[in-house]
Formats: sequence, C-alpha cells, structure tokens
Amino acid sequence: MNFDALFNAQLDALRKEGNYRVFADLERYRGQFPKARNHAGGAERDVTVWCSNDYLCMGQHPKVLEAMHEALDKSGAGAGGTRNISGTNHHHVLLEQELADLHGKEAALLFTSGYVSNWATLSTLGSRLPNAVILSDALNHASMIEGIRHARCGKKIWKHNDVEDLRRQLADCPADATKIIAFESVYSMDGDIAPIKEICDVADEFGAMTYIDEVHAVGMYGPRGGGVAEREGLMDRITLIEGTLGKAFGVMGGYITGSTALIDFIRSFASGFIFSTALPPAVAAGARASIRHLKVSEMERARQRQQVAKLRARLDEIGIPHLPNPSHIVPVMVKDPVKCKMISDVLLDRYGIYVQPINYPTVPKGTERLRFTPGPGHTDADLDRLIKALHDLWSQCALSRAVA
Amino acid sequence: MNFDALFNAQLDALRKEGNYRVFADLERYRGQFPKARNHAGGAERDVTVWCSNDYLCMGQHPKVLEAMHEALDKSGAGAGGTRNISGTNHHHVLLEQELADLHGKEAALLFTSGYVSNWATLSTLGSRLPNAVILSDALNHASMIEGIRHARCGKKIWKHNDVEDLRRQLADCPADATKIIAFESVYSMDGDIAPIKEICDVADEFGAMTYIDEVHAVGMYGPRGGGVAEREGLMDRITLIEGTLGKAFGVMGGYITGSTALIDFIRSFASGFIFSTALPPAVAAGARASIRHLKVSEMERARQRQQVAKLRARLDEIGIPHLPNPSHIVPVMVKDPVKCKMISDVLLDRYGIYVQPINYPTVPKGTERLRFTPGPGHTDADLDRLIKALHDLWSQCALSRAVA
Repeated sequence: MNFDALFNAQLDALRKEGNYRVFADLERYRGQFPKARNHAGGAERDVTVWCSNDYLCMGQHPKVLEAMHEALDKSGAGAGGTRNISGTNHHHVLLEQELADLHGKEAALLFTSGYVSNWATLSTLGSRLPNAVILSDALNHASMIEGIRHARCGKKIWKHNDVEDLRRQLADCPADATKIIAFESVYSMDGDIAPIKEICDVADEFGAMTYIDEVHAVGMYGPRGGGVAEREGLMDRITLIEGTLGKAFGVMGGYITGSTALIDFIRSFASGFIFSTALPPAVAAGARASIRHLKVSEMERARQRQQVAKLRARLDEIGIPHLPNPSHIVPVMVKDPVKCKMISDVLLDRYGIYVQPINYPTVPKGTERLRFTPGPGHTDADLDRLIKALHDLWSQCALSRAVA
Repeated sequence: MNFDALFNAQLDALRKEGNYRVFADLERYRGQFPKARNHAGGAERDVTVWCSNDYLCMGQHPKVLEAMHEALDKSGAGAGGTRNISGTNHHHVLLEQELADLHGKEAALLFTSGYVSNWATLSTLGSRLPNAVILSDALNHASMIEGIRHARCGKKIWKHNDVEDLRRQLADCPADATKIIAFESVYSMDGDIAPIKEICDVADEFGAMTYIDEVHAVGMYGPRGGGVAEREGLMDRITLIEGTLGKAFGVMGGYITGSTALIDFIRSFASGFIFSTALPPAVAAGARASIRHLKVSEMERARQRQQVAKLRARLDEIGIPHLPNPSHIVPVMVKDPVKCKMISDVLLDRYGIYVQPINYPTVPKGTERLRFTPGPGHTDADLDRLIKALHDLWSQCALSRAVA
C-alpha cells in the first residue's frame, strides 16, 4: 500500500501557504566563518552567513578544535552507550562541573540537545511533582511547549513578559499546587528580554519554582558568559537554568543546572535523558574548552555588540525597519512568507548573502522575517555589502521603509 | 523556597528499591577499546568494558576518526543552527544519501539521537495522519512509547512478537483508520528478534504502514549492515526504517529512511526535528565513513558473532544461566536489583570488569540482569578473565546455576 498521497496532501498545503522549507546546503570554512560554500541548487557558490546561531564563531576557535582533536585521538568517536550503560565519559563529568560553576549551581546535567533538555526536564517536573502547575510564558520555545504538553499537568499560559498577568495566574493556582514558572531570557525571534528580577520577586511571593531557558544568552551575556541572569546578578534566585552548547558555545548539546537534588532527580527519572546515547567525548571536550574560554575572554562579546550596533545604525540610515530590542538579534520584518522567501533567494543568488527566511511554525503566520545575527566574524566590508544589497532590494521591490 | 525535599523524597524511594543508578566515569582508550580507565569512586583503574553499544568498536576505527578530524579542520566544531536556519551542512546531505542507499529507500532524515527520531516521527505520524491508530509491540523502547503517547492518537498494544495478537488488533481497528504497526527488529534487553516477514504479511492484509526500529541491528545484520530486514530481504516491505549512528556505527545521532514524500513530511512537520540544532559536521562525516566501511567489510561482524558464540558456550560450561536468543546480546539474569548491583560492583572492584547492572526503568522490576555485548575487540584472554570472575562469584554468592 502506498501512503505517499497522505503525506503529499499536507506538503501541498504547506507549499500553497508559502511555508514549504528549502534547506541551504552549506560547507562552513573553518577559520573563515561566517564564510561558507553553498552546495544547494546545483550552482555551488561562496556565501556569507548572516543567520547563524554560532553567535561568537566559537565553532572555529582553535582551543575548541584542539580539545576536540585531542579527545578524538584519546577516546575515539562516540560514547558507546547511554550515560548509565557505559556511556558516561570523564569529559562529561568535567563538562558538568564546568557548567555548574558557570551558573553558580551545585550540579549540572547534559542532554543531547537543548530541545531534549527542555522537553525532558519540564515533562519530568510536571508529571512527577505533586499537583504541579507549569506557568508558561506565551512565547516560550517549542521544546518547552512540548515538554509541558507531555507532562499532562496543570498549565497556565501568561502573557509574554507580563509579570502582572503572571501574578494573577499564580494567585489563581490551587493552594496545594507545586508552581513552576517557565520562561526564557532572550526570546530568539523577537530578541526581547524577560524581566527576570520581577519574575523572581513574584515567584518568591507565591513560593514558585523558576525555570529559565538561557539558550540564546549563554556565552554572550554576563561577565563570564553565564547569561542574562548572571549579568543581572540573579542566578541564585533561579531554581533551574537551562542552556545549550550548540549556539554561542559553538558545538552541540543541551544542559540544565540547579541544586544537587534537582539534578539527581532529573537524572534519575527523565526518559529523554535515561534512554539516549551520551554525547561523544570530543563534543563534550570541545564545549568545555569553549565555556572556559568565554568565562575569561570578553573580546568576542565586545566585538559582537559592536557589529550588532553597526548593523542597526546602518539599517536605520537606509530606512529599513527592524524590531528594536536589547539583544544581539536583528529581526527585519517582512510579514509575508512568499516575499520573505523571495528576498532571501535574491540575496543568496545575486549577492551571495545567506539569511534564511523565518516562517511558520518558527514564528506565527504573518510575522515572517529575516533574522540577522551579526557576530565577531562579520567584517565591515561584509556589512557594507549587506546594506547595499538590502538597499537595492528594498528600492526594487517597493518594500515599506521605516517612517523617518 | 527550597524544593529539594520534593526531589529527595522520590530519590529515597528509588534507593530503597535498589534502583538508584550510579554512573561509571570512563575514559575510553582509543585503539585499545573495550579497555578504558574508570575515574569513578576516587580509585582510578583500568577496566574492560563488557556492556558497550559500540558493538563493533567502530568508535575507534581509523577511517571514522580520519573523517572526523578532516571535517573538524575543514568545517569546524558545530553546525551553527537548526537544519532550516543555517545548520544544514553538506556532510548531512551526503550522510542522508548514504543512509537511504543503505536501506534501499528514496530518502533519509537525520536526528540528534535515536530517541528523538522515534519520538518525533511517531508523534508526528500519529497526530497528523487521519484517524491514526498506532499498533505498538508491548516491549517497544521508551522513545517509541513516549512518541506514541505524545501523538494522542489511537493506540493498541499487541503482545510482544505475537503476530496473531497483532492480527486481532488490526481487525479491531475502525474501517477508516490509518494503521501504523510499530516494532523493533532486535529487542535490546532480551536480544530476541521480531518475526518481520509475518508482520509485513499481516500489514499488507490490513493495509497498514510498517515502522521498524533497527537501532540494535544496523551495521551488524545483513550483507551491508542494513539490519535484520536487509538480511531477510524485507527492506522493501517496510514503510519506514529507523536506526541509530550511536551504536554499531560508533558515533551519535538517529535517523529514519523511507519514501521521498514520507521523509519530506517528517522533515516539514516534526517539532523535534525542526527546532533542534543539527549534528556537528564532524559527527556526520564520521558516521558516513563508518557506514561506508561496514557496507563492504564483513570482518567486524564475523568476529563479533564468533565472540558472542564463545561467551555463550563458556557460560554454558560453568552453568551460568543466560537468556537464549538469536542476537549478539547475552543477558545473564539476576532478577534482583540489589544483587545485580552487588555483582556488578564486585566485578568492577575486584576484577576490573565493567558490566552495568540493568535495572528499572530499562527493564521491568524483577528482571534485573547483567547484559553482555561481546564484540570484535574482546580477546580470548578477556573472555577467560570474565568467565573466571563469574565462576568465582557464582560459587561465592550461591547464585543459581542453570540446570545441566
């Protein structure tokens, strides 16, 4: 029996809305990132990547690569098992200590991805704690939403970054509820930042646990790269800090940090942790080298801030609207999936500039955008080329400019 | 507020049952695997690992490591994004082609782990196909169970490897149901193998889709390592073959293969795929080298079969009961979590033999076991030492021997 008709019907619907995704096919040039070769579509060409989450170019840092080469030579490719069944490697143990130290917590636990760390942790907390109610920011990431859904516990969605609404919903919880407030620090698509202190205050008032996702902040904010909560001196007020090794740290994997008991609890009960093969030793070694470097080096963060500010200023000069926000993410709103893809295609084909159109389900329909993430590897010449290309395109396509 | 009491209460319960897990802390010796250094418990010592899922020692194969070193040097550490947003690397594309070819399918899709591939695929199929009913073997892996649960579709559990029960349950499905039969080839804890042909026959009879998990078979069964379905000439009768890069292939990651439409459907709709950072280029390159090697090399498989047969024969000689099965997995049943951990501890401390006690939730309570996975790296001297240690222990601990 052929089931393809079932699949094609839904794929056709995606295509009709303009939300069908075509992947680039990149070959990153180590040492020259954000330059890469694009193999997609037959015609190979060199491109400048403007939408990477390797925010600080740590994926090509000599210390990271040296640690990975060394671990490969010493311990081989894979971990060979789940953490419990022969898969725990000394590099995991050292990395977990490094992460606990980064966030000022007693302990940490690694996962194969940030997605799994959110999904597995929230579903375990929600399903195992007595009368759990998870209070979730309305714009939380898919991995948190799926984890909460999987928990099948009480759930309340509070208005994005709205502490008064959160307070109302906390007051509305049953008296015996174990309350867990789940939110992010930097929201990845709009680039806005949560009012962490106010959330902690209201959490204390109602005796709620705080769960923060800092995946778009670790490595980049705070004097040691501990995230926005570190920058604001609030890490000790957060029950659980979740982060990733796959963005600013430049490698892969996710993690949580918290008290010894909390980490041991998730380690002991989370299905998505227990039943997954552990990260390769070389991945753990590379991530650790990256974290150690960013704990003491300010250069990458300073250069990133500089390039972000420049891009914003240059966009303002040519009147291209971008969402204002206090982070490193520069969203240029197009608000139409077809136009968004068209602009992205022209940028790639004509200018060698790669910025992926961001469409549904990553952002709500009608809020399609180009999301730029300038980093320390973008030169001023790269910036000039980008601005020129956008200026041309906006002129040719009669796209709306910002009100002067 | 301190929530540790909540966590500790449940951890204490685990400890009381004997199911609290203590991880080894290994440093694998590349080139000498299954030899490793154990850092756990203060006293470092060298051990022989007898419970790895790096079944064929491919995690230290020169071709795999060379490919990883090269990709690291060429493309750096991480992928830098989700597959859609700058994270697709040419190594992913090549690896997906390799996997499609391995299983004789049109297309393949990578995930960050086998767990995620099962969870994300089954939850997407179950939630998006019209009137879906997933018919799940009673002993399916946790990742499949959680995926089916997450789908919130119709669900029927059929008796383990019992095609007659499957047939009854298929007959019981509503007429308009999209029926998906989900099962494994080699069940990892008992080591038994599914009647794949009979399952395909009954699937055809009822117009059902077939979903097979071959994670404990890929690389090891079939003339090219395509799994049990390849060995039995049945790959073309399976709708979707799921596998892992983290066991016999020695690296990390999971995947599915199937028709172009099926793979595009999962690629386009599965949250766990869409929202995860892609595998590092070097991981993809290493996995591809491993697959390519095992497509043509029979040596590793032959040597594994030989060592498995030797271990079984030697266990029989000293009367230690092990579950008979047609696979490479040799389970020695202890049936008590405390005894199982005790034997494992003594083997490690006194003999330098590392075999993790397998307890709940990996196996049902009361079926605790030592699970041996002999591989091409185990020497006859390793085997002698293991047999001597088990003989000593069984004599000293008055554990039951098999009836002669």
